[in-house]
Amino acid sequence: MSNYSIGVDLGGTNLRAAAISRDGKILEKISGSTQLSEGRDAVIDDIVQAIIGLRDRCSGTRLAGVGIGVPGFILIEQGLIVGSNNLPEFEGFPVRDEIEKRLGTPVILENDANAAALGEKWMGAGKGVDDLVLLTLGTGIGGGIISKGRVLHGHVGMAGELGHLTVVPNGNPCGCGNYGCLEKHASATAITAMARMLSLGDEVTAEDVYKLAVEGNEKAKMVFHTMGSALGIALASLINIFNYPLYLLSGGVLPAWDFFAPSMMKEIELRSFTYRHAKTEVAKATLGNEAGLYGAAYLPQMNQLS
Amino acid sequence: MSNYSIGVDLGGTNLRAAAISRDGKILEKISGSTQLSEGRDAVIDDIVQAIIGLRDRCSGTRLAGVGIGVPGFILIEQGLIVGSNNLPEFEGFPVRDEIEKRLGTPVILENDANAAALGEKWMGAGKGVDDLVLLTLGTGIGGGIISKGRVLHGHVGMAGELGHLTVVPNGNPCGCGNYGCLEKHASATAITAMARMLSLGDEVTAEDVYKLAVEGNEKAKMVFHTMGSALGIALASLINIFNYPLYLLSGGVLPAWDFFAPSMMKEIELRSFTYRHAKTEVAKATLGNEAGLYGAAYLPQMNQLS
Repeated sequence: MSNYSIGVDLGGTNLRAAAISRDGKILEKISGSTQLSEGRDAVIDDIVQAIIGLRDRCSGTRLAGVGIGVPGFILIEQGLIVGSNNLPEFEGFPVRDEIEKRLGTPVILENDANAAALGEKWMGAGKGVDDLVLLTLGTGIGGGIISKGRVLHGHVGMAGELGHLTVVPNGNPCGCGNYGCLEKHASATAITAMARMLSLGDEVTAEDVYKLAVEGNEKAKMVFHTMGSALGIALASLINIFNYPLYLLSGGVLPAWDFFAPSMMKEIELRSFTYRHAKTEVAKATLGNEAGLYGAAYLPQMNQLS
Repeated sequence: MSNYSIGVDLGGTNLRAAAISRDGKILEKISGSTQLSEGRDAVIDDIVQAIIGLRDRCSGTRLAGVGIGVPGFILIEQGLIVGSNNLPEFEGFPVRDEIEKRLGTPVILENDANAAALGEKWMGAGKGVDDLVLLTLGTGIGGGIISKGRVLHGHVGMAGELGHLTVVPNGNPCGCGNYGCLEKHASATAITAMARMLSLGDEVTAEDVYKLAVEGNEKAKMVFHTMGSALGIALASLINIFNYPLYLLSGGVLPAWDFFAPSMMKEIELRSFTYRHAKTEVAKATLGNEAGLYGAAYLPQMNQLS
């Protein structure tokens, strides 16, 4: 019987790792910045050192394995990152095998939003719920789908790319090649772009726009109204597709809930017969930026259970 | 060990039933019209008589159970139809229990498009594929999602309502309360509506529009181009969500494939990074209007296997 596992959350700017017990308690935690400028090997060194550091501090109990959440498209079977705006140097590199080799411990790679969804299912707002969808509203928008208690991966592990759902067919261009992706209409980046269009300032951040809305600025409120509508269109379609009981939102944009939720819920009610007829909750995730750590740590534990 | 099961496909205009063996051979088949004008009880009588007729003809082998595919929103656990444009008299009526009582045989109720998807998975274009999505393009658009070999039902059985995905946020109004539903932009009904807008005739049918396209009529071709684009927007989102290997199309509009598939595939390629990076097939279903019979018959057999 294993006593703990280690979850790693590798972001474009932060590297965090935690040793978490089987019953979901954080035993030890490490965080630092991701030294992308030093190159891929330095980042991998940092990950390995973080894991070894945690393992040393937890000596005496058995390590079930390591889960690593990374931003980007993952080929699950191969443990490869095939597309990542934040970690271009990792594309096509066998990062899982490399870390496994150095640690001598099984490593599971997972998309960061999938890991966050799994974390919320394990210890957060989705505790006790086996079917849920999570949208992470940050610089971009990530998605994670939990189906019967497990991450829905699809064929090669690319399922759940919910930031690239088309919500405005001829909308804003996206780096993925599409127009009108959800993340170009409802992320922090979209919020600042709309705020600039409304002359709220050239250097305005999503947080500034939120503060302006709190102060009663009508233009700032319009931005969140528009962002909420885009989110509602996507959520209505997700509800029509899945008929799951729970849809969670997380990420840096979450504090602005009161400003975007009304238009979001209005679109959902309008566009989803299923929402109107089946008990469906759209709610805030509760683990904040620790969701990914929990989910990553849950991966090796879950695999041992099944 | 059961030797066969009975599948029933109850449509707004047709009632069909078949006895199908465990290895997918149609042993006996019955078809007739649905006498909606005679009232709900008459329709249920017809269903029961059709099943009894098939059972009598298959005497000597054991009946594993009966599956019935019906159009509309189904509460799976309760065996209730809660919303059906085609069968309004059945809404809220315990149709499964009533038929079970009269037959003394287990009955499973399923949404017709879900049954068709399951049929294609069992004996059609999805044979050997455990994860697929089917869109049925008829008067409306239905959807069925097969996940790990089983119908994805969601919380109460309303999952897979893919005809009500929003593809044009301010598009055509839909009876479900939404605007721009896929089925208002890509069904046979949408095709005839667009053809009328282009003055192709007040009484024109989708089949007429197809014939006009075959003859080279540019307006008719535009209709299928537009319809294909709407379908492509929805499929791209489905591919981004599921990353499944197979997406099937079936229904009365299928013969026009050559006219709508080019614009459909163009949208999918534009809008889905996943499509461009993971092997994904968008193909014709192969069982035609027998898919629902196969799927309905597979339901009781599948339940015995699990």
